[in-house]
Amino acid sequence: MSITIYGDSLSGNCYKVKLLCSLLQIDYEWIDIDILAGETQTSEFLALNPNAKIPVLVTEDQQVVSESNAILFYLSQQSAFFPAQVYQQTLCLQWMFFEQYSHEPYIAVARFINKYLGKPESRLAEFNAKQEGGNKALSIIETQLQKTNYLLGDSISIADICLFAYTHVADEGGFNLNEYPYILNWIANIKSQKNFVPMTLSM
Amino acid sequence: MSITIYGDSLSGNCYKVKLLCSLLQIDYEWIDIDILAGETQTSEFLALNPNAKIPVLVTEDQQVVSESNAILFYLSQQSAFFPAQVYQQTLCLQWMFFEQYSHEPYIAVARFINKYLGKPESRLAEFNAKQEGGNKALSIIETQLQKTNYLLGDSISIADICLFAYTHVADEGGFNLNEYPYILNWIANIKSQKNFVPMTLSM
Repeated sequence: MSITIYGDSLSGNCYKVKLLCSLLQIDYEWIDIDILAGETQTSEFLALNPNAKIPVLVTEDQQVVSESNAILFYLSQQSAFFPAQVYQQTLCLQWMFFEQYSHEPYIAVARFINKYLGKPESRLAEFNAKQEGGNKALSIIETQLQKTNYLLGDSISIADICLFAYTHVADEGGFNLNEYPYILNWIANIKSQKNFVPMTLSM
Repeated sequence: MSITIYGDSLSGNCYKVKLLCSLLQIDYEWIDIDILAGETQTSEFLALNPNAKIPVLVTEDQQVVSESNAILFYLSQQSAFFPAQVYQQTLCLQWMFFEQYSHEPYIAVARFINKYLGKPESRLAEFNAKQEGGNKALSIIETQLQKTNYLLGDSISIADICLFAYTHVADEGGFNLNEYPYILNWIANIKSQKNFVPMTLSM
């Protein structure tokens, strides 16, 4: 019996998990959950995750994990995608907390407003307000990637998988990635990994 | 030489670190950083953390860590505050990612608007909008604490320290903790820990 992932292929948070599973060649069963159709609000789904968010992982032992970055942590243990030394592990988590607080709420939300909602007049101010924070997050990543090929140094880790998900489609949120040449190079390096899978084309 | 923590005693994110250090009896030098006076925007501070946020930890070996929850991870290694088993470690991080995405942006921000800004008319709509998400986060914690004394079971962990920081002052953000009796009990349990220190009184 393999692991089960509940997710939506339009979601960058779900794509993180899908990408790591592919890179690590982990088999899984995928159960599609349509957020817009209310499928995270059913009693069955809320029993898995009372926070009504995807992705959710159910392990081979029927243990449940929510929060995309916690799932990355779980799946990467004893692989090269999670570092062995405590300080490097800490930096890995530092980038992942940064992603959830200082990156995703700007870049993923701007992308959602633009790509899925068609940037309606009612959310234009919010869309515009997201640009500054998103560019700040991209600048911080760019500064790191001027020093190292990947966020933690010479090797790819779950910090890269985590930040790649929404960064590589940031143009869909109105961000100009051509201003970030080191990020573009890093994106190319990740795309060239063996067993890389693209984000499912959406809409 | 001991560790150094750059922080602001008004900040719940900084209090997490201060509380864990006290509970674990870790010595540190505290350097006060006044956000409102722009002290996170100096070139010296930005060299420590380009994201211009506190707290920041500098280890005995001059290694730098930002993101409060990554600092908790670092300081708790090889203590009982970080679990030994991978699935428990994953749940610990799951709660900490939940805190940064689904709890802090509602409860800490509502508290900031109310307590520090005096709930001005210009931010009343934002304050009101934070109540639903904050109560949702509190309900999710309450549901867990109906089953276990601490978030991961019978023992206190950094997941509790992380979520305690803003939860125990959620009333200052307009949340009625009397609606959450299991949270009140958990708060009392944490306050009764040996070497507990209260959040510094502010303003």
